[in-house]
Amino acid sequence: MHRSSELSLSVSIDEGSARWRAGAWRIVLALLMVAAGPLTAHAAEKPLPAWNDGVARRAIVQFVESATRAGGPGFVPSAERIATFDNDGTLWSEQPMYFQLAFAIARVQALAPAHPEWKTLEPFKTLLAGDVKGALAQGQPAVLKMVMATHAGMTTQEFAQAVQAWASTAKHPRTGRLYTEMVYQPMIELLAYLRANGFKTYIVSGGGVEFMRPWVEKAYGIPPEQVIGSRGGSKFELRADGPVLVKEAKVEFIDDGPGKPVAIEQLIGRRPVVAFGNSDGDQQMLEWTAAGSGLRLLGIVHHTDGEREWAYDRASPIGKLDQALQEAEAKGWMVVDMKKDWKRIYPFQKLE
Amino acid sequence: MHRSSELSLSVSIDEGSARWRAGAWRIVLALLMVAAGPLTAHAAEKPLPAWNDGVARRAIVQFVESATRAGGPGFVPSAERIATFDNDGTLWSEQPMYFQLAFAIARVQALAPAHPEWKTLEPFKTLLAGDVKGALAQGQPAVLKMVMATHAGMTTQEFAQAVQAWASTAKHPRTGRLYTEMVYQPMIELLAYLRANGFKTYIVSGGGVEFMRPWVEKAYGIPPEQVIGSRGGSKFELRADGPVLVKEAKVEFIDDGPGKPVAIEQLIGRRPVVAFGNSDGDQQMLEWTAAGSGLRLLGIVHHTDGEREWAYDRASPIGKLDQALQEAEAKGWMVVDMKKDWKRIYPFQKLE
Repeated sequence: MHRSSELSLSVSIDEGSARWRAGAWRIVLALLMVAAGPLTAHAAEKPLPAWNDGVARRAIVQFVESATRAGGPGFVPSAERIATFDNDGTLWSEQPMYFQLAFAIARVQALAPAHPEWKTLEPFKTLLAGDVKGALAQGQPAVLKMVMATHAGMTTQEFAQAVQAWASTAKHPRTGRLYTEMVYQPMIELLAYLRANGFKTYIVSGGGVEFMRPWVEKAYGIPPEQVIGSRGGSKFELRADGPVLVKEAKVEFIDDGPGKPVAIEQLIGRRPVVAFGNSDGDQQMLEWTAAGSGLRLLGIVHHTDGEREWAYDRASPIGKLDQALQEAEAKGWMVVDMKKDWKRIYPFQKLE
Repeated sequence: MHRSSELSLSVSIDEGSARWRAGAWRIVLALLMVAAGPLTAHAAEKPLPAWNDGVARRAIVQFVESATRAGGPGFVPSAERIATFDNDGTLWSEQPMYFQLAFAIARVQALAPAHPEWKTLEPFKTLLAGDVKGALAQGQPAVLKMVMATHAGMTTQEFAQAVQAWASTAKHPRTGRLYTEMVYQPMIELLAYLRANGFKTYIVSGGGVEFMRPWVEKAYGIPPEQVIGSRGGSKFELRADGPVLVKEAKVEFIDDGPGKPVAIEQLIGRRPVVAFGNSDGDQQMLEWTAAGSGLRLLGIVHHTDGEREWAYDRASPIGKLDQALQEAEAKGWMVVDMKKDWKRIYPFQKLE
């Protein structure tokens, strides 16, 4: 834009004849029309509207512009534009418990009539008596029991239907909104902005891959084949009415901490150039991404907004952010301050 | 094309004045130019030139035309156009041994100086004495030992370099060509044809994913993130000069037989609409693909050409094709007869 208006200006000053001036005006008009196209498009598509115009937003835009400037020092070839995002606490909320756990609890309640033995079996007994806190207080093995009881023994298709049903009805106790509405508007915009610039956006989450796929495409625009998560086992069975995959009660892979770069290498096979997380469980993914040569965009979403969302970091049992934050500060990774950097948190929140 | 020439013809017959005729010719010329564009492009891009014009080729073209005809009964939405291909025996040769095993043997020989203990340790001792057959005759555990010794204990980057070095130098004993030249020209064309029609092409192979990625993008046009294979374990390590992933001596997942639909569901999360294989190890992938609703293209590459390639099926220890062939015949899946259906096998072979 700038270049073309300067050009038109110098042309109209250099010459004098009326005839030439008419021609010059035509050139000026043509140049303005050329300029106007991109101008309008640019204004309409101004990226990241839910981000305040601070250091974080500017760094993102600057990175994308460098990465896509052919011949420039930061240029990233199209095929290498891989961007990986944690999910819980990075793309949607994760308080007061991981939403997948809320799903598991809802499923225990829904499946209880078919499981009379749960009436006397912990942690189900406590949970079904209405004491969620008490059930969770029984610790990791109890939680795993709940997850296995609600995530295994059915076909992958049945599981996907159960997730879909939950995703379209279950509501968060604090906001009264669907869990799937509690996604971060600024991150949705960031994903879309990266994709518009040729990046392939992936989820790399500790959550179960089959728990995410039924709703993330609609929520984030990320297709199933770009969702990486923890995996349970499953088994191929040829039934009378056709083949099915039956989910087994075993954990095959935990996609968290040092597991994230392992999964990225195994399943994507390219090192990302963009990575965002929000907790110590994302630290190795960020380190792995940072270690590649060339331009990188590394971001940590810092939960600083106790009013519009939640405020937590070092002391939080969920989404603990301590070591990764120290490394971010030491290495100059971007730390997104939710309170300062985001105009709004959720799509349903009005601009203030 | 047809439509536009008919139109120009009827126009020039209907009217008489010289002036109009001049105008009509201009219209005819314009229409011809419009027609010429697609005509030339179509001729240049006639799909699948290395396929003979038989049942198989026609079925493929018919499938693709139906799948991409918007509003038609066989239409497949763009996002669902997933095509999965076995590799060994389906996209490249697999005789007289899986090429990955040839790589492992070459690596044992290359690494021997650093492993004096191999001089007395089987199967290395026999192998290093030059008796490949004798080493392989020691059975599956011996083969696994060779694979582990050559596929573990190094970083993923070092392994990729070793594969790359092998792929660009090692030659097949029978053809004297690079192993990576022994890819099937008709299948490369099929992959490209599918991609040109909006399909996402995947490899789903029993071979190691990290063995395939260094060369398949160049050979088949399939990017690393669309390569699914058997997986060893690997471990994240933060070394002084940065993070690495170290390959471990454990098999994490065997992507063969019933494992193929499991991997497809875990990693892609969509049911394919196209699947090609060549052995009983691909049967469940084909069954899983076939069980979806709507149009499907299911193919088995049948090794019938003992002169230009190899001829084998039921009795072969490598690439055994028995049950899957029976099911193909019973269910009408396409069976590609390499000898009859393919004008040439490898890119380096001249047309006959």
